[in-house]
Amino acid sequence: MRIAVDAMGGDKAPSVVAEGALLAAKEYGYRIVLVGQKEAIEKEFSKYKKNLRDISIHHASEVVEMGESPAVTIRKKKDSSINVMIELARAREVDAVVSAGNTGAVVCAATLGLGLLQGIERPGIGVIMPNLKGAGILIDAGANIDAKPQHLLQYGIMGEAYARYILNIESPKVGLLNIGEEETKGTDFVKESFRLLSESDLNFIGNIEGKDIFTGECDVIVCDGFIGNVALKVSESLAETVGKLLKRELNRGFLPRLSAIFGHRVFKSIRKEMDYAEYGGALLLGIDGVCIIAHGSSTAKAIKNAIRVAAEEVEQNVNERIITAILPKENEIGQA
Amino acid sequence: MRIAVDAMGGDKAPSVVAEGALLAAKEYGYRIVLVGQKEAIEKEFSKYKKNLRDISIHHASEVVEMGESPAVTIRKKKDSSINVMIELARAREVDAVVSAGNTGAVVCAATLGLGLLQGIERPGIGVIMPNLKGAGILIDAGANIDAKPQHLLQYGIMGEAYARYILNIESPKVGLLNIGEEETKGTDFVKESFRLLSESDLNFIGNIEGKDIFTGECDVIVCDGFIGNVALKVSESLAETVGKLLKRELNRGFLPRLSAIFGHRVFKSIRKEMDYAEYGGALLLGIDGVCIIAHGSSTAKAIKNAIRVAAEEVEQNVNERIITAILPKENEIGQA
Repeated sequence: MRIAVDAMGGDKAPSVVAEGALLAAKEYGYRIVLVGQKEAIEKEFSKYKKNLRDISIHHASEVVEMGESPAVTIRKKKDSSINVMIELARAREVDAVVSAGNTGAVVCAATLGLGLLQGIERPGIGVIMPNLKGAGILIDAGANIDAKPQHLLQYGIMGEAYARYILNIESPKVGLLNIGEEETKGTDFVKESFRLLSESDLNFIGNIEGKDIFTGECDVIVCDGFIGNVALKVSESLAETVGKLLKRELNRGFLPRLSAIFGHRVFKSIRKEMDYAEYGGALLLGIDGVCIIAHGSSTAKAIKNAIRVAAEEVEQNVNERIITAILPKENEIGQA
Repeated sequence: MRIAVDAMGGDKAPSVVAEGALLAAKEYGYRIVLVGQKEAIEKEFSKYKKNLRDISIHHASEVVEMGESPAVTIRKKKDSSINVMIELARAREVDAVVSAGNTGAVVCAATLGLGLLQGIERPGIGVIMPNLKGAGILIDAGANIDAKPQHLLQYGIMGEAYARYILNIESPKVGLLNIGEEETKGTDFVKESFRLLSESDLNFIGNIEGKDIFTGECDVIVCDGFIGNVALKVSESLAETVGKLLKRELNRGFLPRLSAIFGHRVFKSIRKEMDYAEYGGALLLGIDGVCIIAHGSSTAKAIKNAIRVAAEEVEQNVNERIITAILPKENEIGQA
């Protein structure tokens, strides 16, 4: 298993990325190719004495910043760590890629560089969402903000394959994120998506609402990229807000303080259960390759987990499962 | 102050509604008109011995159920508590209305029955969102899922008036809910809304993301009804999920149990701070009247607070403030 990791991506690159790569090499034995500015990466590694045999460095002179326009950087920064990492995947020198960098640039580079799977019209970002029964997948969390109903059907199929083969859910339930449960709810776009999902072979349970994301009643949550992005960011920040309020309680006298200390302990345990770092990042599904997009604020552990998730996707042949699932559907639609 | 309350609206109607009305009459001295099936309401009141002098009952024979289509019920259930309540407002027999019933039916009945304020093209549901600095308002939480950029500008103006005169924020900051902070982010619809908001007299701080809702950096969060509804329901349910996880911890041995008991205490305090019941329901802004839509699962306290919020909106002349703010903008646009 060879995995290319964007050493320059993320708020604390390259140090956190180098540390995460080391952890992954040590724990799983993968061969990691760190892509980025050689000197900066070597400087990081000078801190460590051992375990470097499974890690190599592939130089890329440029860095894509977080706020940069994807379309521009793809053209102007040809030697960016993101572009070079995707090139390695295209040349089949690595089995998968991982980046905690500019999401738009990664989506753009991967889509153009690797192409889409047969039958897929748009890539989708899948995010593992912890819930009261374990975890599900939400797709799309922002790859495509101008989705058509047909794309949402394809997201359903991709998410289902991921839930089945990676999350090991036997018959994943697929739900459409809407503003009410009734079939008549929502915009024309959502209603048409509902129709396509109903007619598919998926185990489609109908519309779900924002409040159902965490109950675990549904394993695959399908939505367009704008909605998915907002839903994801609200979820992430609310958990963070509860943490901040807890800290504030610490300064309110003895009993609140005692409660907050104990509360902190239980909250940490809950937070671990809801922790995105445990799930290692988002999956760019639909491309002809395996690409994991880790959070910009990823810790070394999150990078390590992102690398593990990438390897699992390769090992479980998720892309072949998607192609198998999508092609008969495409034919049916062709006949209709 | 006379307020009509839909006695048949909400999961536990009419009992919880009657109790909430009693609390409001007692605490604030408002005159409450409970609208709904007379016999059922009287049965509730037979439990109470006193304090009934400020409460009257106005009979309405029909009930709109939660799942019913608004368009159908408006026509077919003319004598529903929602329709009759709106009729009382139209006849100026009451100053405001409150319902915890079918949101769509209330929006529809209020818009058709009371009409829109001069210069407003679509009503918007405003929701008070607790945040780390206090509270802000999100508009629209689902009145209008087919919004135009012009409607979002009007939401900004309505939300600003509410934040200024009811939340007492001196120069409310208005933000547009988007998937990134840069001006170039989002769909064409969002970009055009950005342009209109930038050119307005509002204190527009630009795009905000889902993660910014709870920081309090922004006092008025503007978005279309679909996004707003998802964001609101995700927020509500995540808080609920943390509560459930806390309960689960109670069954995990002594130390976790001790932590959970203390955690529960601090969580209750946090939850109170984040509690939607404290804020008493959503505001249907843009209609020529005052209409509060309480949560279907409202407690008596939430109903009481919804009645208080309705009274505040009347007392502060929010609608006149909105008209004053909107008309110059309309003229400018007319000249452009």
